[in-house]
Order: sequence, then structure tokens, then C-alpha cells
Amino acid sequence: MSTQAAELPFPVLPKTDQGKRICQVIRVKPERLDEYKKVHAAVWPEVLGALRKAHVVDYSIHFFEPHNLLIAHMRYIGKDFDKDMAGIADNEATKRWWKLTDGMQESFVPGATGSESGPGWWTSAEEVFRMEG
Amino acid sequence: MSTQAAELPFPVLPKTDQGKRICQVIRVKPERLDEYKKVHAAVWPEVLGALRKAHVVDYSIHFFEPHNLLIAHMRYIGKDFDKDMAGIADNEATKRWWKLTDGMQESFVPGATGSESGPGWWTSAEEVFRMEG
Repeated sequence: MSTQAAELPFPVLPKTDQGKRICQVIRVKPERLDEYKKVHAAVWPEVLGALRKAHVVDYSIHFFEPHNLLIAHMRYIGKDFDKDMAGIADNEATKRWWKLTDGMQESFVPGATGSESGPGWWTSAEEVFRMEG
Repeated sequence: MSTQAAELPFPVLPKTDQGKRICQVIRVKPERLDEYKKVHAAVWPEVLGALRKAHVVDYSIHFFEPHNLLIAHMRYIGKDFDKDMAGIADNEATKRWWKLTDGMQESFVPGATGSESGPGWWTSAEEVFRMEG
């Protein structure tokens, strides 16, 4: 391999290498998908506030139809992940939000009971490649 | 709902709302997964160069074991998406890269023949939520 392409002028890129990247997957019940999309078009401000306060940024969820999957991507830019996640779980609006949205989903985690407690609800997907911007 | 949380002080956040977000999914052949991970631990510089030249940044691929899926996320920060994608497809190293990696994958796209041409290879997943950082 030559290194020709690596010597090309690169565009100025935004810095994106801060923080921890997280990708999580869960199954959406097909009959609840429209409802899931509807509530996510107007997520409660308290829920977004709890995420931001916990240093979660750049958060998107995509729907993959062939397996009825919801795929979440986010970055964590804080210093104490466990403490920040506990902060989210303490937020009353978030607890109500999880009650609402958990019912639209089926977890891949054995023994999972919901987002609030137990062995987890969404399944983490392993990072196998990254190119920073 | 009160707006209490929205009034909390927010951390200073990196700007992440530039560009187009893309999430794509494909199946990895389970017997080729180790090889896929190995080549992605050292992607050819020409392939990365072609992506950057085409204004693709912040690109990650995750593996979701329950369905043997590869989940790709990237941002496109250029002005002419079709032209930039054509530029990637014109890159000789990228063509060789695709020949290598296509063989490790199975497309969900009906009639798909490979990354280089045809009706597509990876399947786009629909965005249903976004919170900018």
C-alpha cells in the first residue's frame, strides 16, 4: 500500500474525540413503534435535562426495521460515569419516562426487568472500529 | 411536567450539531468476525484518507452479537454528499478494501451485490431521536 491518500490535504475537522462512546441496542415491539416515535419527537425536557446534567451528549436513536431494533448512540463526557448514571436513575421524570418506554421494548438481557434496576435493559454493542473526526 | 430540570446549570458542551448523521447496519458472517475485527484494528491509511477527504468524520462501527450485526455511525460534514460518496467509490484502495470486507458480510438489501455498485450494501437505519451535545 502507498501512503498517497494520507498525504492529501484534509479538511479542518471538528474535535470529536472527547469522552466515552456508547452504543446500545434493544428490540422495539413492532406494534408500539409508532407510539415510540411519537413520544421521542417530543421527549420531556426533564429527561433531556437529566441526561445533560449527567454529561451525556450527542445522543441519537435509530430504528433498524429488519430486526425491529432500536440502536442508541451517545457520548459520555463526564468524569464519574457510575455517579452520573446514578443521577439519571434518581430523576423522577426519568423514572416515569422509563416506565412509559420500557413497555414498548423487549430486552435482550437475560433476566432484565426494566431500565430502573436489575441486570440492565439495553444491550451494549462492542466497538470494533473508530475514526475520530 | 414542570421545567425544573431544564433550569439546572448545564455543563459546557462540545458542538456536535454539524452535518448529517448516518447509521447503517449489515450482518457479519459469524465465522468471519475475528478477521473483521483484525482488519479494522489497522484500517489501511488510504481508506481512512478517502473517508476524510469525502468529509466523513466521527465514524464508529459496533458489533451486536444477538443478531450478528455490524452497526456503523458516521457524520457527513461536506456540502455535496453524492459527489463525496462518488469520490470514495473512485478510490482504488477503498475498492480493494470493499472486496475484502464485503466477503465477511451479508447485506439486508434485496439484490445487493457489493459496496461498489448496485442497490446498496449496508442498510440505512432511520433516526427516531436526537439530542445534540
